[in-house]
Amino acid sequence: MAGNSFGQLFRITTFGESHGTAIGVILDGCPAGLTIDLDFIQSELDKRKPGQSKITTQRKESDTVQILSGIFEGKSTGTPIAMLIPNEDQRSKDYGHNVDVYRPSHADYVYDAKYGIRDHRGGGRSSARETAARVAAGAIAKLFLKHQGIDIFAHVTAVGKINAPNLESNDISELLELREANIVRCADPATANEMIEFIDSVRKDGDTVGGKISCVVKGCPAGLGEPVFDKLHADLGKAMLSINAVHGFEYGSGFDGTELRGSEHNDIPLPKAKEEQQFKTISNHAGGILGGISNGMDITFKVGFKPVATIMHNQQTINAAGEAAEIKGKGRHDPCVVPRAVVIVEAMAALVLADHVLRNRAVKL
Amino acid sequence: MAGNSFGQLFRITTFGESHGTAIGVILDGCPAGLTIDLDFIQSELDKRKPGQSKITTQRKESDTVQILSGIFEGKSTGTPIAMLIPNEDQRSKDYGHNVDVYRPSHADYVYDAKYGIRDHRGGGRSSARETAARVAAGAIAKLFLKHQGIDIFAHVTAVGKINAPNLESNDISELLELREANIVRCADPATANEMIEFIDSVRKDGDTVGGKISCVVKGCPAGLGEPVFDKLHADLGKAMLSINAVHGFEYGSGFDGTELRGSEHNDIPLPKAKEEQQFKTISNHAGGILGGISNGMDITFKVGFKPVATIMHNQQTINAAGEAAEIKGKGRHDPCVVPRAVVIVEAMAALVLADHVLRNRAVKL
Amino acid sequence: MAGNSFGQLFRITTFGESHGTAIGVILDGCPAGLTIDLDFIQSELDKRKPGQSKITTQRKESDTVQILSGIFEGKSTGTPIAMLIPNEDQRSKDYGHNVDVYRPSHADYVYDAKYGIRDHRGGGRSSARETAARVAAGAIAKLFLKHQGIDIFAHVTAVGKINAPNLESNDISELLELREANIVRCADPATANEMIEFIDSVRKDGDTVGGKISCVVKGCPAGLGEPVFDKLHADLGKAMLSINAVHGFEYGSGFDGTELRGSEHNDIPLPKAKEEQQFKTISNHAGGILGGISNGMDITFKVGFKPVATIMHNQQTINAAGEAAEIKGKGRHDPCVVPRAVVIVEAMAALVLADHVLRNRAVKL
Amino acid sequence: MAGNSFGQLFRITTFGESHGTAIGVILDGCPAGLTIDLDFIQSELDKRKPGQSKITTQRKESDTVQILSGIFEGKSTGTPIAMLIPNEDQRSKDYGHNVDVYRPSHADYVYDAKYGIRDHRGGGRSSARETAARVAAGAIAKLFLKHQGIDIFAHVTAVGKINAPNLESNDISELLELREANIVRCADPATANEMIEFIDSVRKDGDTVGGKISCVVKGCPAGLGEPVFDKLHADLGKAMLSINAVHGFEYGSGFDGTELRGSEHNDIPLPKAKEEQQFKTISNHAGGILGGISNGMDITFKVGFKPVATIMHNQQTINAAGEAAEIKGKGRHDPCVVPRAVVIVEAMAALVLADHVLRNRAVKL
Repeated sequence: MAGNSFGQLFRITTFGESHGTAIGVILDGCPAGLTIDLDFIQSELDKRKPGQSKITTQRKESDTVQILSGIFEGKSTGTPIAMLIPNEDQRSKDYGHNVDVYRPSHADYVYDAKYGIRDHRGGGRSSARETAARVAAGAIAKLFLKHQGIDIFAHVTAVGKINAPNLESNDISELLELREANIVRCADPATANEMIEFIDSVRKDGDTVGGKISCVVKGCPAGLGEPVFDKLHADLGKAMLSINAVHGFEYGSGFDGTELRGSEHNDIPLPKAKEEQQFKTISNHAGGILGGISNGMDITFKVGFKPVATIMHNQQTINAAGEAAEIKGKGRHDPCVVPRAVVIVEAMAALVLADHVLRNRAVKL
Repeated sequence: MAGNSFGQLFRITTFGESHGTAIGVILDGCPAGLTIDLDFIQSELDKRKPGQSKITTQRKESDTVQILSGIFEGKSTGTPIAMLIPNEDQRSKDYGHNVDVYRPSHADYVYDAKYGIRDHRGGGRSSARETAARVAAGAIAKLFLKHQGIDIFAHVTAVGKINAPNLESNDISELLELREANIVRCADPATANEMIEFIDSVRKDGDTVGGKISCVVKGCPAGLGEPVFDKLHADLGKAMLSINAVHGFEYGSGFDGTELRGSEHNDIPLPKAKEEQQFKTISNHAGGILGGISNGMDITFKVGFKPVATIMHNQQTINAAGEAAEIKGKGRHDPCVVPRAVVIVEAMAALVLADHVLRNRAVKL
Repeated sequence: MAGNSFGQLFRITTFGESHGTAIGVILDGCPAGLTIDLDFIQSELDKRKPGQSKITTQRKESDTVQILSGIFEGKSTGTPIAMLIPNEDQRSKDYGHNVDVYRPSHADYVYDAKYGIRDHRGGGRSSARETAARVAAGAIAKLFLKHQGIDIFAHVTAVGKINAPNLESNDISELLELREANIVRCADPATANEMIEFIDSVRKDGDTVGGKISCVVKGCPAGLGEPVFDKLHADLGKAMLSINAVHGFEYGSGFDGTELRGSEHNDIPLPKAKEEQQFKTISNHAGGILGGISNGMDITFKVGFKPVATIMHNQQTINAAGEAAEIKGKGRHDPCVVPRAVVIVEAMAALVLADHVLRNRAVKL
Repeated sequence: MAGNSFGQLFRITTFGESHGTAIGVILDGCPAGLTIDLDFIQSELDKRKPGQSKITTQRKESDTVQILSGIFEGKSTGTPIAMLIPNEDQRSKDYGHNVDVYRPSHADYVYDAKYGIRDHRGGGRSSARETAARVAAGAIAKLFLKHQGIDIFAHVTAVGKINAPNLESNDISELLELREANIVRCADPATANEMIEFIDSVRKDGDTVGGKISCVVKGCPAGLGEPVFDKLHADLGKAMLSINAVHGFEYGSGFDGTELRGSEHNDIPLPKAKEEQQFKTISNHAGGILGGISNGMDITFKVGFKPVATIMHNQQTINAAGEAAEIKGKGRHDPCVVPRAVVIVEAMAALVLADHVLRNRAVKL
């Protein structure tokens, strides 16, 4: 199956290149009867759009979404929802210098190797601009999940070697407010300031830096995830790894947990009070997922992003003929991708969860 | 789609419970004309089977594979290859005590929550015994990849806090020999001894411990991987995360790479000598994959396994009614899963790569 | 995706060749908690098995099904149900003469052309023996549908130019009894006798003849079918056309309906009495399906089978080198396929409906 | 999987309602490097568009296609091709009378039953307007097939009881010219005149009539089709049955072939001259497909369309409350759908064949 679709029952297909006419998405499988809040979709896109602050790319795109189908009188009808985001600021000529030269650590070479042809304007299809389409669809997934009592929250927990402490609050509204109060989208204000300062200095160096985003899902019922291959964390992992620049995924105790003993790592269940439904454990090394199925505890995972490849330094590289060439970054790029990626992580998580909510409906009499 | 299939064109579907009649797999999409070496398949299964050494479970299973279809006169015919592995040592009564009690950090509770019914004998479908079916199919994937010039090598690089140094050799035959010379399957003999000693002491404590497996794919041509969702590393990540006990996946520079600057992380391409096909870079932080597509360099990734949940200690837990209960591990379990998981990691990697070799055939005129 | 799977959520994958070790099926997605009546599954297989009567092939196969997984204490667990049917009467030597010669109107040539290799024993994978696996899985689908109040009935309505009149009864138990009272499986006793006599005379001529099977689905709720491609009748059509020897499918008014005017063809809805749920129309040219979605009326369709290609006459043909050759039918074959195909039609219909029952659960809030 | 996608490797997803903003399609999997002739795409759409002649609906839509992505410098790049067709003549108010009344033999009732909500303007998603998106994608499939030496030709062979004789010509250019020389799209001029006259009289009666379309595929290599479920004719059948108003599909000898004996029906292969590749048979009852795989002969099939449900007569029906109601057709509708459906049949056939060309690449070493 061609690779531009994601999900089984709540399924998206995205299209579009960085400097083409438009990018967009078809969402097939959104249940009928959902109230579609267009302002919410736009506000999600606004969190991803370029030009938000001094630590993001200065490309100017309003990223205004148009809904073409699937909504009638404000509600989803069960038919495909198509959304379009026109490209506005297509300074393709910035990329004329890339026609024949392969930018280091970009996808230029591999697209040529794979397809024998490449839209070289701004990375073409390999541009992270494609993720705007995911955010639009993810916003609808969030609306569906909200209706099911499920909430998702992500924020930046590392930039370079600067790490945020564990969150003290457990309240998503409060966390969202803390996060949106700063331009790096870390819910810890002190760390946020440190991160911003650091990114700004990196930017001034013409350089870039990586980072990490942590995500928690609250209110997820027990039972989501389809063993043995479509385990909930396996689908979350694939979703995250499909985001541009992501190099690592871990859930629950993650890589740190590999150093523990079973007697330390096991999460001990608590007896339920009468009529309580909720399964609870003392610790949550499982990250809310056992055997690939949600257990009702918070789902937690972390995503690692490498530094953006486009830097404003001279770099050695090769051209399409394999000869030595030199390149200097032009165009408008992010010094650090994580502030804008927070909403992408949330969107992909929402898409995975919405899909598994629907898939879970089919499993018992 | 139900969750027991993996892959698109080179596609497996597995079945079977830990203590049922048999486990097995159908491989649909293996190209016709491949010579099927049954001894090789069995030798792969032998690397995963229980009872191999003092640091694995003492359950006795010969894991003898039977091929039921899809092979004619020693070659694949392009029709589905069904393989069966009978369960021999089904001491189901060892699990009688689990009928009503949820073992901590096992999937018992979530299977009940999801399906309303559960085969409680030895974990049923959630048992890692299912991975034998993956190894059998993965062996055929390896034979196909070998025919395409692609080799896969994994070994144990961490047990608890004991980490192996970087490999000095680049030769897969040599590495395989080093790895198979010890029971923990680490290609560094000194570290291997340390690991074995540690696992044995953990086992004597009635406890378990986690670890890490690193994998390299050599000889992979440029061009494998299907953007934007079925990126090669995204499919590898999902494959690995679908293995029992895996909590983390990273490729190339991984989580460490998130701390670097772009100027440090970028892999600088080397000019090609005349008639050279191979794309080469000075460093390989990309782990052989750019924009989700292989670039021809070694593909490298790492997988983290949590400690096995079954320990020989008394643990507090709850029963199906939600009441407090106590459990003590019985049955026969591994103190550390990574020695037997090496071949599972290789098998899943082989399945992903075989699938992408086939998918890549469809992309250009 | 490789072609040996059918269905999305209630999904089967079959394997096996006519003269291999065994054929079988994995059913993935059967809801948990269904009581699995093994005797019923076997009784369905008995209706398809060879050697039932003088008008079927004399190959001797007991077609005894073994269940390998997915059932615990008599109920489905939500995990894959694997079923195995060993091949017993493998007179492969009957087929030695076929190694190099392409039998007219068989798949011999195309398998060689497609795969470059072919299991020539009895048609290998192209043999209708594969359909036994479908019948086994279809039996479980029927059990699930029965639980949902949905019943399926098919019978032979034409052999050659002999056509059965429209059914007078509307009662499935009665119809089943009428059908099973004769060896051709036509619910009209007089026509059945005529058909049997005709098939027997054709058999004595060493020849074969085609026929038609009609099917009705009762108790299907409104709402099954997923526009715009997975319309209920489109999936039924694909299911039927995937059965060996089928050359045509029509539903409701079918090809005859193309000759009508809209004013004749339209089905006029009847006002509902208070508290009645059921949508009813005066006529049912729609065959119970509008816009690809069931409307609650009886679903009706018809399937056309060509005559079996193996005849006991000398026939001109070619060998693998393209040279003229002569062939005379050997082996044991059916003079007319429809009596044994009735239960295959029902099985495939059941698989489609079970799949759509599950898919329909995902469409609204 | 949600039902608005078709194909595996050459895969389309359509969206849009009759009276929404736009309809469109994403084609994912078109091989890179294909020259995209926009004029050809538009000319195909022109053959389907409304208002072409006195025997089609008078709705005015230019059906001008816009390509949003996937094409660079005139060639496909291997990335998704998104195409948009704005809706221009949205006289939604014509449909105000349908809000609460279920039109007989339309999908109004079942959409309400399935989704609990319905875009009642002009049939919404159930409108045949959706097929314009298929025609746009099918045009690209045709360009790809042309590149592979495969041609498709369909024409009207029956309107009501008027049947066209068998074609005398075997030349597709000539046939196309004959077909496009008349407004009913029958390649036999005398029959075409009769059909046109008949449709016009039916139209004057305010009534509608059904018909049949026959299709031939020339130049198809042996080997396309994936047993045992994705047989070439099974996928063609599903494709055709997914088109609005289709009630029947048959290939090769079809339903008529069920009346023959094997000795009459078998297609006898002809010895090949030296160096000839092509497999040939004296007759072609197989319709170019054996065992679900193309054999290199012409592929032939026939599709039956019921009469359009909207008639200009008063009809009894019910409203959403189940009460008796009366309806009289308004809006602008076709008296007979087949003249405009010829290019839809060709488009769907092209999509199936393109998909199977790509799938066939994966089957052997």
